[in-house]
Amino acid sequence: MTVRVGVLGATGAVGQRLIQLLDPHPEFEIAALTASDASVGETYKDAAKWRVNSPIPEDVAGLEVRATDPDSVPDDVGLIFSSLPSSVGAEVEPEFCEAGYTVSSNSSNARMDEDVPLIIPEVNADHVDLLEVQRDERGWDGALLKNPNCSTITMVPPLAALDREFDLTDVRVSTLQAVSGAGYSGVTSMEIIDNAIPHIGGEEQKMESESRKLLGSFDGAEVQLNEMDVAASCNRIPTLDGHLENVWADTAEDISAADAEAAMESVTGIDLPSSPEKLITVFEEPDRPQPRLDRNVEDGMGVAVGGFRETTDGVQFNCLAHNTMRGAAGASVLNGELLNKRGYL
Amino acid sequence: MTVRVGVLGATGAVGQRLIQLLDPHPEFEIAALTASDASVGETYKDAAKWRVNSPIPEDVAGLEVRATDPDSVPDDVGLIFSSLPSSVGAEVEPEFCEAGYTVSSNSSNARMDEDVPLIIPEVNADHVDLLEVQRDERGWDGALLKNPNCSTITMVPPLAALDREFDLTDVRVSTLQAVSGAGYSGVTSMEIIDNAIPHIGGEEQKMESESRKLLGSFDGAEVQLNEMDVAASCNRIPTLDGHLENVWADTAEDISAADAEAAMESVTGIDLPSSPEKLITVFEEPDRPQPRLDRNVEDGMGVAVGGFRETTDGVQFNCLAHNTMRGAAGASVLNGELLNKRGYL
Amino acid sequence: MTVRVGVLGATGAVGQRLIQLLDPHPEFEIAALTASDASVGETYKDAAKWRVNSPIPEDVAGLEVRATDPDSVPDDVGLIFSSLPSSVGAEVEPEFCEAGYTVSSNSSNARMDEDVPLIIPEVNADHVDLLEVQRDERGWDGALLKNPNCSTITMVPPLAALDREFDLTDVRVSTLQAVSGAGYSGVTSMEIIDNAIPHIGGEEQKMESESRKLLGSFDGAEVQLNEMDVAASCNRIPTLDGHLENVWADTAEDISAADAEAAMESVTGIDLPSSPEKLITVFEEPDRPQPRLDRNVEDGMGVAVGGFRETTDGVQFNCLAHNTMRGAAGASVLNGELLNKRGYL
Amino acid sequence: MTVRVGVLGATGAVGQRLIQLLDPHPEFEIAALTASDASVGETYKDAAKWRVNSPIPEDVAGLEVRATDPDSVPDDVGLIFSSLPSSVGAEVEPEFCEAGYTVSSNSSNARMDEDVPLIIPEVNADHVDLLEVQRDERGWDGALLKNPNCSTITMVPPLAALDREFDLTDVRVSTLQAVSGAGYSGVTSMEIIDNAIPHIGGEEQKMESESRKLLGSFDGAEVQLNEMDVAASCNRIPTLDGHLENVWADTAEDISAADAEAAMESVTGIDLPSSPEKLITVFEEPDRPQPRLDRNVEDGMGVAVGGFRETTDGVQFNCLAHNTMRGAAGASVLNGELLNKRGYL
Repeated sequence: MTVRVGVLGATGAVGQRLIQLLDPHPEFEIAALTASDASVGETYKDAAKWRVNSPIPEDVAGLEVRATDPDSVPDDVGLIFSSLPSSVGAEVEPEFCEAGYTVSSNSSNARMDEDVPLIIPEVNADHVDLLEVQRDERGWDGALLKNPNCSTITMVPPLAALDREFDLTDVRVSTLQAVSGAGYSGVTSMEIIDNAIPHIGGEEQKMESESRKLLGSFDGAEVQLNEMDVAASCNRIPTLDGHLENVWADTAEDISAADAEAAMESVTGIDLPSSPEKLITVFEEPDRPQPRLDRNVEDGMGVAVGGFRETTDGVQFNCLAHNTMRGAAGASVLNGELLNKRGYL
Repeated sequence: MTVRVGVLGATGAVGQRLIQLLDPHPEFEIAALTASDASVGETYKDAAKWRVNSPIPEDVAGLEVRATDPDSVPDDVGLIFSSLPSSVGAEVEPEFCEAGYTVSSNSSNARMDEDVPLIIPEVNADHVDLLEVQRDERGWDGALLKNPNCSTITMVPPLAALDREFDLTDVRVSTLQAVSGAGYSGVTSMEIIDNAIPHIGGEEQKMESESRKLLGSFDGAEVQLNEMDVAASCNRIPTLDGHLENVWADTAEDISAADAEAAMESVTGIDLPSSPEKLITVFEEPDRPQPRLDRNVEDGMGVAVGGFRETTDGVQFNCLAHNTMRGAAGASVLNGELLNKRGYL
Repeated sequence: MTVRVGVLGATGAVGQRLIQLLDPHPEFEIAALTASDASVGETYKDAAKWRVNSPIPEDVAGLEVRATDPDSVPDDVGLIFSSLPSSVGAEVEPEFCEAGYTVSSNSSNARMDEDVPLIIPEVNADHVDLLEVQRDERGWDGALLKNPNCSTITMVPPLAALDREFDLTDVRVSTLQAVSGAGYSGVTSMEIIDNAIPHIGGEEQKMESESRKLLGSFDGAEVQLNEMDVAASCNRIPTLDGHLENVWADTAEDISAADAEAAMESVTGIDLPSSPEKLITVFEEPDRPQPRLDRNVEDGMGVAVGGFRETTDGVQFNCLAHNTMRGAAGASVLNGELLNKRGYL
Repeated sequence: MTVRVGVLGATGAVGQRLIQLLDPHPEFEIAALTASDASVGETYKDAAKWRVNSPIPEDVAGLEVRATDPDSVPDDVGLIFSSLPSSVGAEVEPEFCEAGYTVSSNSSNARMDEDVPLIIPEVNADHVDLLEVQRDERGWDGALLKNPNCSTITMVPPLAALDREFDLTDVRVSTLQAVSGAGYSGVTSMEIIDNAIPHIGGEEQKMESESRKLLGSFDGAEVQLNEMDVAASCNRIPTLDGHLENVWADTAEDISAADAEAAMESVTGIDLPSSPEKLITVFEEPDRPQPRLDRNVEDGMGVAVGGFRETTDGVQFNCLAHNTMRGAAGASVLNGELLNKRGYL
């Protein structure tokens, strides 16, 4: 049974990636697209200045753009993907949930709310049942599920592999993030050519809190945050796609570089259509992964790691993922697939 | 009294910066330039494809390039600046020292040798007297003094300010380094456009060992390395000049972000011609310093810092310096000035 | 006698360059700064996110930003520099002229109006007396003078040198323009990294018409456009500053590459404070001028040329100028100096 | 029948693209790879630092690299692809031809030799029979066929479409060329970041002469060069792949922008495996084609055009092709397919 889906914020950078992934999706069928008021009534082709590196899907190009409110979306839509600016998401997503829609959201609002599951299916799929708590507390017919920030998604799968076996105590992470992470117009060329910007507003905090929730434990009632200490330093650099991160992971158990690699190698994907066969690809060359060369590993849904070195208190390594695919649109689609599999749609 | 100086490796990227700094220098006068065999006998103008952003000094342009060996340099040269590839430096620098020349070197060879002073004058000028030990042990008439690697120089002045007051225990540093650090032809455009490279061969080790020597203590006989634990992760990014670094500094004493800033603000320059009035410039804006905007702080001889945040075990911050000025040519010139002031010439 | 001046649109990219040039100016004194309504009442420092590569002038930083209308500017202001979006300029500049202000404008509106002088002082200073016609026709107490578009300014000085001696018949010009030409936020990083854009709206037409007006003849009553045929093709590339242009200049008289170079070399500056000693700098190296290396020739107020080759019908060559200095802010200041010298203030 | 093929210079940038295209080729089978002496005896995987954006073909990875001389290549190799530096090609290619090998070469040597066919199959396939003349004159058992320079290939298909109908008289072309055109290490990052270089040694001359040969007429004995006058200006810009060109095409017959577009639209591919269905793709958006967005049109084997404007003497337009695919490796493969179809293997 195909699920009819809607996309909120369909004309933005992540919205376009969502269309690219959903158009040929085996379980989902695009039924409704929304955008800001200025575009309502236009065809999607006219409203979206399509910039993705594959042609705009023909059957989507002619769809009429709808307003971003529950009344404008057909009742038979079974799942909503949301990629709205967080201030809009904070206002609109609860309205959709109250109206009975289930929302898989990439927007940053509400990610740390106690009754909102924050999910990377390969890492903490079990947290999805926090939705039961959510429904009880909020009285919604619908439901709200979040994926983390793109920079968080890049480091958490490898951290999860380490935490499972070696018990993380402290994490330090420095990011080299691509400009697409700020949206199509988020970083001007004057800001970034021959430059780097050592700060991305709110990003450090997101990485620090979201990672502890993702690696936390869910007991059926609440998520206990992981007790590890996380400190992040986020930088924007002149790359188009792919967030590269330097990580120091201190562990309670003894660990060598080889141990860390072996832990990564042992990670497997899960049985969801968009989960890659190999969630983590280990590079042996010390100068890999690199954004331009490796961001499309596993069709953009994998995480690439390399550069393992033992430190006094643990290991250091580098990780990389495609920020608008695995880090955003692909993450939301995966969460939608999880909801479908677990019977939440 | 003006000191007549020679430059080994005068046609390279750092060599050209040395010429730019030495030509108008109040204490030094350029007397001899050497390069590799292919250029010997040419005028400097012909041998160097001059690429520095100021015109080639007229009185230097016509100098004849000499071979890089002690016999080809006039006896009245009182100080040699060396910016040779480390393999060449390892062979040639001792020959100059044996022949009686005093060498202020930027090359990476011998930096960690026990009887070779590794100096940033504003940080550990007292180590210069290790030269007495060196002369005793090696029987040289000349002497060999080193400045650290460009990425080390960027972080050590701020670390020194913290160590003095708060006692550093652990340092984690992630670098975003400019392509000029690899020399004019060191990084191809195909490697770095729309990309980043998470490894620079040997650079991590240099930062880890050199910083401990610079912040070590000299008792008149030997340098005791600082006991702090340092782990570095080095990245090349598509910027032209200016190394930006994210630092986590854990301290034995309690420290706040404001404490750290105050420690930086209190640092003063020293009485050498090339030492800036303000060694460390503190930026309050969270997204500064940035390479393109701030690499020329204090005419390229300062270190810019910003982004202070308190962490569980200390503070994190960002620092930036111009890698071919403060980080290389300017560092060697400063060390030459120190030698002059201390009567070693 | 110092002239008190105002700047309309003082917070934009060109506005900031105007401040940079006017603050230390020998003839002008900054008396009033205007910006859009959102900034009115703020200090200039707060309103302008200062991005120029020299510190914000201290005496300007504290000035209060005024509204962009004649009533908000003091009566003793003798000259207005305007760098407004053309749609705003079209509306506001005539109001200032009616109110008695003399305006030296960089905005693109009205440049081709028959009674508006379009001036590069070193090329067609005599056109300034078209202001007499303007005053008669418009009944203004003030006056409106324009400088051309940045891409036009780059090629017209060399073209003028050729036209004078060899009579231009056809010009073909292809531009490689820097992102700063579109304003600070005009080109996003997603648009231009690893890319080029072969079209800049309206720019081709500006180059084609403005160059013919600049090289036209003024008989005291009107400007006859130069009869040469001009066709332009404009490209945006990933450079920060400096417009590079490939020009084919066909001439009625026989011309060689050496003739063309000699014509350029013979050009002299004029007696205005901001006119460079050498208006045109000729490079002999075939791969010069280059934007990053040569955009600051003559402190950014010169034009660099090179790559001369004889063609079947004339010559081809390359030219380069700093688009926000010689091509915009500096051009307006020069025109202000011309107005002052000719007694129009 | 599959033809066994060899690749000379297989480890270079174009050599790797050749491997990428030949590995899955329906008519060709890779049998021998050569490189410079330093790599002889190594596996291809070790010798080539593989940098193409698809994995190294498994069956090629283990092949042993051979010396670049006829004796080291098996006799059953029926076709040689050559992508050698031109100085090496000039020496080695004739040796292969004398030894009986047929060579489809991308190297720039000998392209203008009177008895060497210079071919773009969709444009002048009939010139291939110049090989009969070549064999007569040189007494070779083998044969030497060339494809043009990458920048020439980009503009000639659209020029051919215009010349056929409207008779070209003058062509002016300005190029914006990607760094990959200079080979993997051809352009350093220090040269090109925030910069452009208005000269590529020899490139202007290649475009001017090769285009006249390609659009010349072959009467069975010799190629008469097209009489059009061509002048080129070549620039390197900071893009990775894809040469963008601004063209002015003056014609003997009257032509409008719509005429030119229609002429382009009417071009069809030809019946060779690597010839795209649509040789020329016309873009209606005035700011297209752009290198990053459009270089992969028709899997990198098409030419994209746009920006048509009528001029006084003809039309101007922009064209773009992938320089290492359609402009180099793909061009050589296409020529190999032509040789196969015409029975020259």
